Amino acid sequence: MNSTAPLYEGKAKKVFATENAGEYIVEYKDDATAFNAQKRGEWAGKGATNNAITAHLYPLLEEAGIPTHFIAKLSDTEQRVKAVTIVPVEVIVRNVAAGSFCKRLGLEEGESLGRPVVEYCYKSDALGDPLINSDTAIALGWASEADLTRIRELALKVRDFLTPYFEARGVRLIDFKLEFGKLPSGEIVLADEISPDTCRFWDAETGERLDKDRFRRDLGGEAEAYAEMLKRVTKEV
Amino acid sequence: MNSTAPLYEGKAKKVFATENAGEYIVEYKDDATAFNAQKRGEWAGKGATNNAITAHLYPLLEEAGIPTHFIAKLSDTEQRVKAVTIVPVEVIVRNVAAGSFCKRLGLEEGESLGRPVVEYCYKSDALGDPLINSDTAIALGWASEADLTRIRELALKVRDFLTPYFEARGVRLIDFKLEFGKLPSGEIVLADEISPDTCRFWDAETGERLDKDRFRRDLGGEAEAYAEMLKRVTKEV
Repeated sequence: MNSTAPLYEGKAKKVFATENAGEYIVEYKDDATAFNAQKRGEWAGKGATNNAITAHLYPLLEEAGIPTHFIAKLSDTEQRVKAVTIVPVEVIVRNVAAGSFCKRLGLEEGESLGRPVVEYCYKSDALGDPLINSDTAIALGWASEADLTRIRELALKVRDFLTPYFEARGVRLIDFKLEFGKLPSGEIVLADEISPDTCRFWDAETGERLDKDRFRRDLGGEAEAYAEMLKRVTKEV
Repeated sequence: MNSTAPLYEGKAKKVFATENAGEYIVEYKDDATAFNAQKRGEWAGKGATNNAITAHLYPLLEEAGIPTHFIAKLSDTEQRVKAVTIVPVEVIVRNVAAGSFCKRLGLEEGESLGRPVVEYCYKSDALGDPLINSDTAIALGWASEADLTRIRELALKVRDFLTPYFEARGVRLIDFKLEFGKLPSGEIVLADEISPDTCRFWDAETGERLDKDRFRRDLGGEAEAYAEMLKRVTKEV
């Protein structure tokens, strides 16, 4: 564990500077939050599970042609990453209608979408990460048109890799949230994490939720669901 | 006034069938609603003013290369239009931050945007016209990709015509809402209305609100502001 103060502390992770200005250490916490941190909890092993899942997936995404911030797993709860400036636009990719999308649009959960839907939200805890579109992000200076074109392209590439990857492991990838960062060179890379905190995973056979909806909706069994997802993610098929 | 039952009655207009299947009659009402009809009112002359403003502007937009549903003004409160199927996607074009956009994104009203922002909302009173994006409209079958490309192009053309048109008449065009319809041929045309109900108009010198915000915000003087806008719209410059 790091003994210095973090550069940044989020809801589920801390980010620390290193001796190298081009690298950070990310520490995954056991804290869980939902509904813009109005609901809070934690369970032992959450940070380690999300760290392990992300550390397994990011090198596979790199191999699939998606540049990421990931360098190496350092310990159960820590990974070394490239230092990036986070683009303040969260990217949500939806294969199937679920969660807030259904509430907002009056849809049944589980309805397959005719094509993937990419949504952008302005990354702001104070405002509750409001939905925006690319015009707004560009007009308000949060991302350039070229950055957003690249971000959308990479987000769809992540989807095209992950959807069959999880399908082969008995999991329906319903939707997921990505964050992107910018290297000093200007290159856009996938940052943040991919885990049951940031994806909806439904068991392909039973429909059982294997993600943060267990916590959001008081379904119980969070630790077991996350552990099951780590098993599926790392399974050779 | 029409004595038969309308085909459709909205918050501010009624639509009637005619002896000709390809044409409707639109009757403008004096009713005013705001905040998804949670606030209701009316004032004498509102329907006539909006009818006159729309009937003045739509032929000018046609001349500027924007196809519309408008055929002719029939009376103080009625106009004849082409029968269209309304695309259930409302289009908001913003030059300057105001209203719900500011609340959602924590901005000051009156901040000029670096470039026009085009937003889409799903036209649903029951859901409160939620913000969507083009992926969502296409995935849920509300509009095709080609339709949305054309709608965006026409919406920006309307903006490029109206912004200097109002500027020359001492009015800042802050934002406006458009609706589009489809002719049986598949052609997309501008439908609905352009009036102080659907635009934000600020006096260029005083900043005075000359639009429905007078009603929304209990500023008073609605009838006078709408009448002033009719005078400005029809002014030769």
